[in-house]
Order: sequence, then C-alpha cells, then structure tokens
Amino acid sequence: MNKMIKQHIVVAQNASGRNMNVPLYRFIGAKPGPKVYIQSSIHGAEVQGNVVIYQLIQYLKHMPLNGEIILVPNCNPVGTNIKAGEYTLGRFDPVNGTNWNRGYFYDQALIHQFAESIENHESVDSIKSRFREKIKAQLQQKLDETWGIGLAQRLNLKLQQLAFDADYVLDLHNGPVATRHIYVPEYAIESAKCFNIPHVILIPQVFSGALDEATFCPWWLLSDLVSAKRQKAVNFEVEAFTLEMGSQEVVNFTEGEYDAKSILAFLTAKKCLTSGGISAERITRKAVYLKDYKILYTQEGGIVEYVAKPGEHIAQGQLLAKVLNVDNLDNEMATSDILAPCDLIPILHFPSASVLSGTQLYKCFTHYFEL
Amino acid sequence: MNKMIKQHIVVAQNASGRNMNVPLYRFIGAKPGPKVYIQSSIHGAEVQGNVVIYQLIQYLKHMPLNGEIILVPNCNPVGTNIKAGEYTLGRFDPVNGTNWNRGYFYDQALIHQFAESIENHESVDSIKSRFREKIKAQLQQKLDETWGIGLAQRLNLKLQQLAFDADYVLDLHNGPVATRHIYVPEYAIESAKCFNIPHVILIPQVFSGALDEATFCPWWLLSDLVSAKRQKAVNFEVEAFTLEMGSQEVVNFTEGEYDAKSILAFLTAKKCLTSGGISAERITRKAVYLKDYKILYTQEGGIVEYVAKPGEHIAQGQLLAKVLNVDNLDNEMATSDILAPCDLIPILHFPSASVLSGTQLYKCFTHYFEL
Amino acid sequence: MNKMIKQHIVVAQNASGRNMNVPLYRFIGAKPGPKVYIQSSIHGAEVQGNVVIYQLIQYLKHMPLNGEIILVPNCNPVGTNIKAGEYTLGRFDPVNGTNWNRGYFYDQALIHQFAESIENHESVDSIKSRFREKIKAQLQQKLDETWGIGLAQRLNLKLQQLAFDADYVLDLHNGPVATRHIYVPEYAIESAKCFNIPHVILIPQVFSGALDEATFCPWWLLSDLVSAKRQKAVNFEVEAFTLEMGSQEVVNFTEGEYDAKSILAFLTAKKCLTSGGISAERITRKAVYLKDYKILYTQEGGIVEYVAKPGEHIAQGQLLAKVLNVDNLDNEMATSDILAPCDLIPILHFPSASVLSGTQLYKCFTHYFEL
Amino acid sequence: MNKMIKQHIVVAQNASGRNMNVPLYRFIGAKPGPKVYIQSSIHGAEVQGNVVIYQLIQYLKHMPLNGEIILVPNCNPVGTNIKAGEYTLGRFDPVNGTNWNRGYFYDQALIHQFAESIENHESVDSIKSRFREKIKAQLQQKLDETWGIGLAQRLNLKLQQLAFDADYVLDLHNGPVATRHIYVPEYAIESAKCFNIPHVILIPQVFSGALDEATFCPWWLLSDLVSAKRQKAVNFEVEAFTLEMGSQEVVNFTEGEYDAKSILAFLTAKKCLTSGGISAERITRKAVYLKDYKILYTQEGGIVEYVAKPGEHIAQGQLLAKVLNVDNLDNEMATSDILAPCDLIPILHFPSASVLSGTQLYKCFTHYFEL
Repeated sequence: MNKMIKQHIVVAQNASGRNMNVPLYRFIGAKPGPKVYIQSSIHGAEVQGNVVIYQLIQYLKHMPLNGEIILVPNCNPVGTNIKAGEYTLGRFDPVNGTNWNRGYFYDQALIHQFAESIENHESVDSIKSRFREKIKAQLQQKLDETWGIGLAQRLNLKLQQLAFDADYVLDLHNGPVATRHIYVPEYAIESAKCFNIPHVILIPQVFSGALDEATFCPWWLLSDLVSAKRQKAVNFEVEAFTLEMGSQEVVNFTEGEYDAKSILAFLTAKKCLTSGGISAERITRKAVYLKDYKILYTQEGGIVEYVAKPGEHIAQGQLLAKVLNVDNLDNEMATSDILAPCDLIPILHFPSASVLSGTQLYKCFTHYFEL
Repeated sequence: MNKMIKQHIVVAQNASGRNMNVPLYRFIGAKPGPKVYIQSSIHGAEVQGNVVIYQLIQYLKHMPLNGEIILVPNCNPVGTNIKAGEYTLGRFDPVNGTNWNRGYFYDQALIHQFAESIENHESVDSIKSRFREKIKAQLQQKLDETWGIGLAQRLNLKLQQLAFDADYVLDLHNGPVATRHIYVPEYAIESAKCFNIPHVILIPQVFSGALDEATFCPWWLLSDLVSAKRQKAVNFEVEAFTLEMGSQEVVNFTEGEYDAKSILAFLTAKKCLTSGGISAERITRKAVYLKDYKILYTQEGGIVEYVAKPGEHIAQGQLLAKVLNVDNLDNEMATSDILAPCDLIPILHFPSASVLSGTQLYKCFTHYFEL
Repeated sequence: MNKMIKQHIVVAQNASGRNMNVPLYRFIGAKPGPKVYIQSSIHGAEVQGNVVIYQLIQYLKHMPLNGEIILVPNCNPVGTNIKAGEYTLGRFDPVNGTNWNRGYFYDQALIHQFAESIENHESVDSIKSRFREKIKAQLQQKLDETWGIGLAQRLNLKLQQLAFDADYVLDLHNGPVATRHIYVPEYAIESAKCFNIPHVILIPQVFSGALDEATFCPWWLLSDLVSAKRQKAVNFEVEAFTLEMGSQEVVNFTEGEYDAKSILAFLTAKKCLTSGGISAERITRKAVYLKDYKILYTQEGGIVEYVAKPGEHIAQGQLLAKVLNVDNLDNEMATSDILAPCDLIPILHFPSASVLSGTQLYKCFTHYFEL
Repeated sequence: MNKMIKQHIVVAQNASGRNMNVPLYRFIGAKPGPKVYIQSSIHGAEVQGNVVIYQLIQYLKHMPLNGEIILVPNCNPVGTNIKAGEYTLGRFDPVNGTNWNRGYFYDQALIHQFAESIENHESVDSIKSRFREKIKAQLQQKLDETWGIGLAQRLNLKLQQLAFDADYVLDLHNGPVATRHIYVPEYAIESAKCFNIPHVILIPQVFSGALDEATFCPWWLLSDLVSAKRQKAVNFEVEAFTLEMGSQEVVNFTEGEYDAKSILAFLTAKKCLTSGGISAERITRKAVYLKDYKILYTQEGGIVEYVAKPGEHIAQGQLLAKVLNVDNLDNEMATSDILAPCDLIPILHFPSASVLSGTQLYKCFTHYFEL
C-alpha cells in the first residue's frame, strides 16, 4: 500500500521568535505515476480545504496510488491566526496589505532563456527535469537573498518549491459567500470535466502572482516556445487549478467528503489512482473566459440585502441586491435596487451587509456557455 | 394622523474634524399616550434593526398613534463604518476595546438619594417627571465634564438622554449566528409574550452598562424603594428590552417586516397604537433566568463545524461541534467532538470556523422553561 | 550560586491547534528569602519589559540571591503577535475587546469567609500559607470549569497561579508615549522610593481586574480584617506594583539596563539580594492619589501636535496640544489650542496624531506632591 | 492679490450612506503661470502634509502668485479614519489590502496611439492641451464604468482628474520612522535641488500605480515619442514628486513651516511666485537610483532595537539593529545583531519593535552620491 510520511516545514518566525510551520503529508504509491501537490488555506479564512484534505487522507489510507501526493493543509500559519473582531483577517498580510496568494515566482525572460538551451532532440522528460531544477534553483536563490525577502513572498516560495515538482497542482480556496467554482487554464479545459464543480473560469496565459498561474504559466510558455521551435505540439502534461469550495469562515465535514471525491475523480482520470475508483458526477458545467467574469461594484454605500444567491441564473434587469439608506427611511430614497446589467450567474457576493461605495458586491459569469 | 419630524444629532467628530451624526425619526400621535424609544445598530455589524425600523416607519405612516415614538436607526456612526477585512468591526471601539453598549449611566447612590426626596403624597406622575429631570441633568453634567469623556460613553449618554424620557425602550441587536431572542427584566415577564420572539432571557436588577439595564434598573430600584416606603407596590410602567433579531452581517427585508409586526404587536398591547391593530403570534416561548444562559468556551483551538444549529433542542451528550486539528489528519486525533454538557438550546454560535482556545463557541439556554 | 530553571507554560492554543506558551525563568538562591514574581508584556505592544528582564537575568547570573525570583517575559503570546497595520494590537483580545490585564481573579466574599476561619493564635506564616492554598485552589477551580473560560481570563489565571505565591509582584508595562511611572498600593508608599521611577500613582484598595490589584487587594483586605479582629496591625509583607517603563512599540537595551538596576535596587531593599548591591538613585519623586490622575479627552476630532511632553511641569492655561481642522485651513478655525485645565504633569499621551473626539489625549498628574 | 476658492469634492460614500469628501483650496494668481497641484495624506497615517499645506496657505494669502495652485489636504477621508488600536490603518483599504496609492491610471498603449495623432507642426501647447483632454476623458470613462470601480481606484481617479491639469504635482507623504526624502523622476534631477530635502531617490520611467508616476510617466513617454519623431528634444515641462516629510503618526507645526518654505522655494524656482521670495537652503543632498534604494528584511522574528537612526551614515558591518529572542534570555542566543551588508544610509525603519520574519526593517540608500 501507500507509504505516508508526515513532516513540518518552517515558513516564518513570529514576534516571540518562534518558528511557524506547516504540516505536510506525503503519500507515496507502490507504483510510479504522476506527482500531485494539494494545498489549502493560503487565505486564512478559507478553511474548508483543510476538511477536504482530511477527507482525502481518509481515502488515501486505503486507495492504492500511482506516484505521489503531497498534501499541505493550513499552509499559511500566519494568516490563519490573525483575528480582527470575530473573523479571520486571512486574505492579506495585516502589516502591509500583501495578498498571501500574489507572491509566487514567474519570470518570462528566464523561460525564454531556458528554451534557448533546449537541443532539438532532448526528450520531454529531460526537459521537464532540467526545467524543474532551473526554476527551483531560482526559488532557492531568491530565498537566500542577502537583503532578505518579505514574509508573504517567503511563504509563497517555500510552498512553490514543493509545488513545482508536481504534475498536478490543486490550490484549495473559498469565496466570501460563494458557490463552488474552479479556475482552469484554457489549455486544460477538458480537465474541468473531471471535477464535480459546476462553474468554470478559463484563464489565459497571464501571471498575476497566484500559485496556479505560477505553475501553469511557465510550462505553458515553455510548451509554446518548444512547440514553435520543433514545429509540433509539445505538451508537458502539467496542470494547475484553483478550486473554490464554497464560502469562507465555514466548514462542513459532509461537503468536505463530497469535495474530496471530486478531487479523487480528477486523480483517477489522471491515473494517479490505480483502481477504477471514483469518477466525476454528471452535472452541468457552465464556463466563462476570465474577461467575462465580471465584478459588480456598488456605486453607493449602505446596508445591503443580497437578493440574488450564488449559482442562480439572473436575467438582465432582474433584482440583484437592495440597498437601505438610513437617512431616508421616510421617503422614496429609503431603498435602491441594484439590477443585473446583463444576463448573469452570480458566483459569489460580499460577506457583509454593510458596504462602502466601491465594494465588490458580486462576481458574475456573463456570456457563459456550457462545457 | 401622526406628525413626523426628522432630525440629526451630532454624537462625535472624526479625525477629519467632521461631525458624525445619527438620524432621528420622531412620530407624534394625535392623542396622548406612552413614549417609546427604539434604536438599532449600537453594535455596528448588527444591522437588521435598521431594516426593522425602516419597516416600522412604513407602518407608522398609516397607523394612528397615541403618544410618541422616537426611532434612531444606525445609532453608532463610528462603529458602523469600521471595516477590518470584509467584515464590520462593530462591537467595540477599535482604539481601546470599549464595548459600544457598556457606557450608559447608572448610579445607585443617586437613586437612593432621590428616593429620600420623595414625599409620601407625591403622585407617580410627579415622581416620574422629577426623576427624569434628575437623571437627565446628571447625564448633561457628565457630558459637560471639563476633562471630557470618552467616545463610546459620549455616544451612549447622548442616546440615553433621548431614551430616558421614554416609557418603553427597545434596543435592536443581532447575535453572531443566532436565532431570535430577547432580554426582558424579570418584572416585565408578561411583556415577553407581546413579541413574536421564541427565546426569552430574564434579567435581574443588575447593571452592566447596557441601554436596557440603564433604563430599567433605575426605575426598578426606585419602585422597590418607594414601594417599601409606602408599603404598597408602586409601579412606574417603564420597561426596556434588548431584541436580538437573528444574525449580524446580514439583512433581510422580508424578515424585517415580520420583526416590525412583532414590535407593533407590543406597541398595540401597550396602547401606543389606537386601532386594535396587530397582535402577537401564537408561538412557543422558552425562557431562562440569566444565570442559566451559559457560555460554552472551547478548550482547544482549531477549525470548527457548528453541528448544532441555533434554536435546536439538544440533549446532554449530543454533538454540538466538531473540531479539526491540522497536525493530526492522519490519526485519531484529527477531529474531536464537543458534546452538550446538559440538555440545552444553542441560541447563538461564534461566526467563524477558526477559533483559538477560550473562544465563546455557543451561548445556550439551560434549565429553560415555557413561558 | 543561584540555580536557574527554564520552563515553558502552555496558556492557549491557536487556530492551527498549536500550543502557545510563555517562557519562565526561575532563579533559586542558595539562602531562603522572599519570593519575587516579575512578568512583562501582558499588553503585547509594551515590550521594553522583555529587555528589562533580559538585563535582570544577566545580573542574576552573578548576584547571590535569597529566596526565589520567577521571571516571565513576553507573558502574552497571543497579544504579542497580533499585527494591525505595522503596529501590534496588544492591549485587548481582537476578537472581543477584552483588555488582557483585566481578567485576574479577586473575590471579596471569599476573603471575608477565609478571615472567619482564622483562629486568634494562628501565626502569620500559617495564615499566609493557608491563604495562598485557598486562592490557588480557587484559581484552579475556575480553570477547570466544565463550560470553559475565556482566552484572556485563562491566560490571566495561569499567570496569577504563579504570581500568588510571591511576596513581591512586578508587572512591567509601557504607556503609549510616556515617561516612566509606577502604580503603588497606598500602604506600600515607602517602597516607591526603592525604584528609580520619578512618577508614582498611589492606588486605593479597589479591584478593577489588573494583576497588581489582584495581588495586593486580597492581602490588604485580609490584613484589615485580621488587624481589626486582633486589634493590632497584622502585615503580610506582600506588595505588588505596575511599572510603566516608558513608551510602547520601542525597546532600548541601554535604558533596559537602567530599569533593571532600578528593580535590583528594590530587590536589595527587600533583602532578596544578599550583597549590599545596588541602591536606588537620588531622584525627585512626584506622587498622586489615583483620583488625581486625570484623563484629558479631546472634545473635537482632528490632527494633533502634542506640544507638552511627558514629564514636563505645565501650568494652568499653558498649551498642551494644538489641533488642526482640515476644512478650515484658510480661516481662524484652522487650529485650536487645548490648554491645561490646572497645573499638571502630563505622564503620557496618545500615540497617534489623528484623533476622533473622545480620545484619551493625555493622562496627567494633578494635585501632585513630592514623596 | 490671489483669489481663493474653497470646494469639497465627493470621493466615496460610507456604510451610513453618507458622502465622504475632500477639501480643495484653489489659489488663482493675478498673472498667468504654471498650474500646481499639491495633495497630502493619501496614506491616512501620514498627516504632516496637512500641516505643511496649512502653512503654505498662510503664505499664499500674502504672496502674489503666477498661475494657479490647488491644495488638497487630507485627500483620503476613508483611510484617515480607520483606527486599528490607537494607530491609523492608513496605507491600504482594510477590506481588501489595496494600497491607497496604487490605483492611478496609466496606459502606455493609449500614449503611443496619441503620439501617432500628433502632426509634425503641432505646437507644444496644443499637444499638451489635447493630451490632457485625452487622458481626462479616459479617467472619466473609467469612473463611469457600468459595472463600477473599486473604492481606492475611484478615489485615485477623482484626484488624478485634478492633478493631470497641473504642470507640477507634489504628493506629500511620510515614512514610518523616517528622515526627509523625495522621489524625483530622473529627467527632473535638477529640480531636486530646489527643495530643502537631503535625500533624493531618482525614478526611472516605470509605472507602479502611484500619483507621481501616473503624472510623469505619460509626459515622459510622450516626450520620448515626440522627440524621436521630430528628432529633437521636446519637453513638456511637467514634473511630479513624492515628498516624504519625516515620520507618520506625528505632526509638528514648526517643521511644517520649514517644509512649506521648502515647497515655496521650489515654486519660486519654477516662477509660480512673482517675488524673488524664498530660495532653497544650502544643504548636502545625497541621491540614489531607485535600484540602489534597498529594503532590508528581517530573517528572524523578535523584539528589535533600531540602533541605526534614519539619516546616519553607516559603514558596512556596523550595527543596524539588535533582536531579542525571549526564549533564550539566559544564553548567548538571547540577542542577535543585524549588520549593514554594505555602506548605507538608513532612510526609514519599521515603526514597531515587534517584528515577524520577513518584515521591512530598514530602507537604505546604497551606492549613493552627492547631487
């Protein structure tokens, strides 16, 4: 059966001078196969992924594995433990506002340079292996900077060192108040059907700092460059996804088991699991290109009822939200309606009823299509 | 019909040197009757009361009133507007941790002294009128302190100046994640049946700084003193309640209308409304004495699923919550169960799945009884 | 020479399910003598005491001790590690606003009851020993509550278990922007002269939750009760002090050595140190009764220059602070002056130039006198 | 003499539904001349600039002006008023971590496109005027987005609408604990000598979201493009600077007057002031290129004494800071020294003694030279 190794990795030190570490569960199959890396809770309030990893581990104790799976729950011991009022201030470093999921490494120039180094007859395996060493050497060099590096970036690079070895990377998140959705690189659109996740966002080859992008962008660009050079498609079979497992600040063990099965279905499809095992459910999947995943900002401040629920289909002109203005309770300006600017599916909404103007009220699928 | 006057009252000044004010809607009936004072959102994240006041105003435009109702929505313009992450940091002053609902004024000695001043044949009306002047003079004196007073206390005293004139005071709050409940002074237990609120906490004559206590404690003590002196029950017919209208950070206009009707039923029972109007619903009401309203604290830190929902009846030993420990996902310490220490009804629970040890996980009715 | 034992005490568990502990350094002298307890940083941003304890330890390695000294630096591992912006949010639990220094235990009734149990001929040593057991049993009972206790209270009681064994308790704090000052129970006024601290606040027998009060109030009350009973002064020789070592958010090793010497001078006076050792400096000490230690609150919000510096003597009517109002920069309301309401010494001021109305601008000695 | 107009501009609405506005003081000279735009406190805790603008206004009441000066103190009414503990959480939106000074608009493609539209004989004045209209139209279009825009971005664009009309833009900031320094675009290096500011950072033509960059980058690029086309230097005489006037959370009226004179010296040099007026002081100015302005991050967490003070010249290997580790106070790991990695001038340091690993401890001039 699978071998299980548990470790802890130091990623920071707190003001008491104590190490802060993340747990790492490594399952090694009896047979060779792909490497998989799964982490959760890089945003500290998005904790359902920890339950999903717990449920995954219960399965992996008994399901024969090909290759290796690394599971890193609660991968941000700083962000998990910052309270501001009753809630967890988990999206960004409270010192400087740095989003915990925007400091991963990607350097286009380096990839172009590496592509130059590839000889015409080098095998895909050899390229992959050399590329991994190259990128990991870069990560180590940045971690060893004489002048040091920032807290969030160090955390990100330490995790990326683990993740960059993997063929499949899953980063488990939650939305504020959200329905399940997944970010998928455009080239891996078929893989979106392996998960039990009804809403799919297709991402272009653009890097904005997140782990999924930091994983797929290098391979994608390298694939483009090598394919162009060799005049035929060269595919490195590396994929990365951000899975949004419902709402932040909430966990549910039953849903966690459902989510774990969804991931097991993906792993089965990718032949990480020996037995026929688990397959994805037959659900309808709606997809959008990233440019059609729109943020609706409030134009006014006030108290908001979120009338449209995540996952509902809303027609243009239909009521999304109702805003109360406390200075006008006696007249017709007491409430104002926020209407859908076009047909859309709200995927998530802001988790507080009190909003300033310019708040991200909803994020919505527009021009969506069935996968 | 009723006359409506709208005002704004300055309660603070911000760092930009700008006044911060609260809106005040005053409805004056054609006929004399009791005075009622209703405020909402002294805790900034507890916003449903604003919607309830909005719905009340829609009714009061058309229902003939006896006496006067003052409505003060959004009565804490400071606390409403402090964000810490996406949520509102509304329970306490972020500068010093002062709970916004603990700075009202109450002075036992003053009341004893006032009771001394009452002659044997002074009428109840005269006593009430003189007592109000006495207390309000004290409030003004504190507001005029040469050395100044703190932000929360000034806000509280400014509101108390309005509230102390009233015969009925309703302070509209929300719990974190909560079912509807109401705090009722023990002497007003019959009034608990006038509201559509299924859970009732009976409060003794103890002051811990809140508006309801600051209202009923003085009258209650005065009533005790005068009754003792005159050797017969002297009742001033002043009551005050804290109504917890569900969960914080959420508003719902439909539920707001239900809550407004609940208050209108109370006002009808107290003859503030002329027409037969609205009466309370026939619901089961469970009550506890304050001493039996217990807080369950976590003994450990971790990620929590709140299995028992607010309002459910839970037997001793039944599962309340399940805690995940991320360092032990591979062994039997992965989860631990928190069981009910006795038969109870959870009334509210903590709103975040991430808890440190010593967190108020649940507040529960124990030894409850039917009203 | 002295024996040194280092331990760690678990006081909480964080959301990652990890223990949070405080370091404890115990120095045991070769000869018997008093027990001393010194802690620092119960308020997380008040960190100079950690440096003072570091400097004390350097001395205690070489100075023969009578009795025992327990040093607990950084005694609040939660509060030390909460950042909100660049600063440490260290005065209160960010979840609920509970001041970390207000949850110690004191129960008057218990002490009255204990005093009843004292026989006329019981020795002071026997009373002390029995009283300590009694209180510590109470502390343990509260820690073992079925329903649990809150985070701040657990931390406080765990520390109080250590402190209540001591004859001398020193709690090391800092003010916001402050000159050095010390809180001294009125009965221990002579001890104030043993420290190198120029400003002394004399505290009555009133408990408001802090460690010094939780230490001296029980002994003081017990002393009063036993003295009354026996009709002669019975003194238990227990003293407790809060030392405010300058400003928060700043440490200075050189000043830390000066402060360490100040404490060594006190310990020498109390015969905890064998050798003649270190004596207090000849400095002028100004003292006030607590009632004359006044808070000056702003009446307006704005941008403030703190013109009067902590420790300066300010005459009535002299300029304390100047407030800028950004909406009136072109007219004579641009600035307003805050003047001293009487002769005073500002001891500390608010650490930010931006204030809302109702901010504690200054805390001041009034009606002070020389010790 | 100069005409003065005061206005207020609405930039946001809070959760109470109330407008949040910034004051604007516009001084119009009797004679034509350049337009100047000066704002302060876009970062809410950096308040000294408000005092500087106050002092500037006192001068501008009496000094004849050429052209026009717009002064916008306290330009961020949201960020100024967020407290987290006693300090102002002013660098970023507390909801999402967005830095208040990173949402200004710049679009290279648009400028290339505009440059195409310039005919060979179009005058510099005509180009400037058309370019301003073009950019301002873009700003308005973004403000009018159907789906809305974020709070910080709206604030930024509203201010940029005012600033983009100006020839000289000064954005007044403060560092955490800092000596005075100024950011200057490389092409305006001579202007650095017009201010009384001893430390100068020279910025390349790179945009990272700040107001100064959003002002000079477009003109710089346009200048490059037009110059290339016309094969001779075309200069639009537009300059923008970020002035860091010492430390945040502190104001000082006397220093504010000195800073105001520094700005008046610049304005005199640029002929905005008629009379010979005020000239810059003869001080030594040290400058660096942006790439040599280095951040030193801590590698460890702990309690820090900042030994090296901002503005001091520190040699390689000299002590910068000393870190205390509370778990090792009894051994040689109690303190560790952070040494200068090369010759440097610390310009600013972190404002709290408590740091996690990865904190920006110091920002330093390296490879600096005299201007």
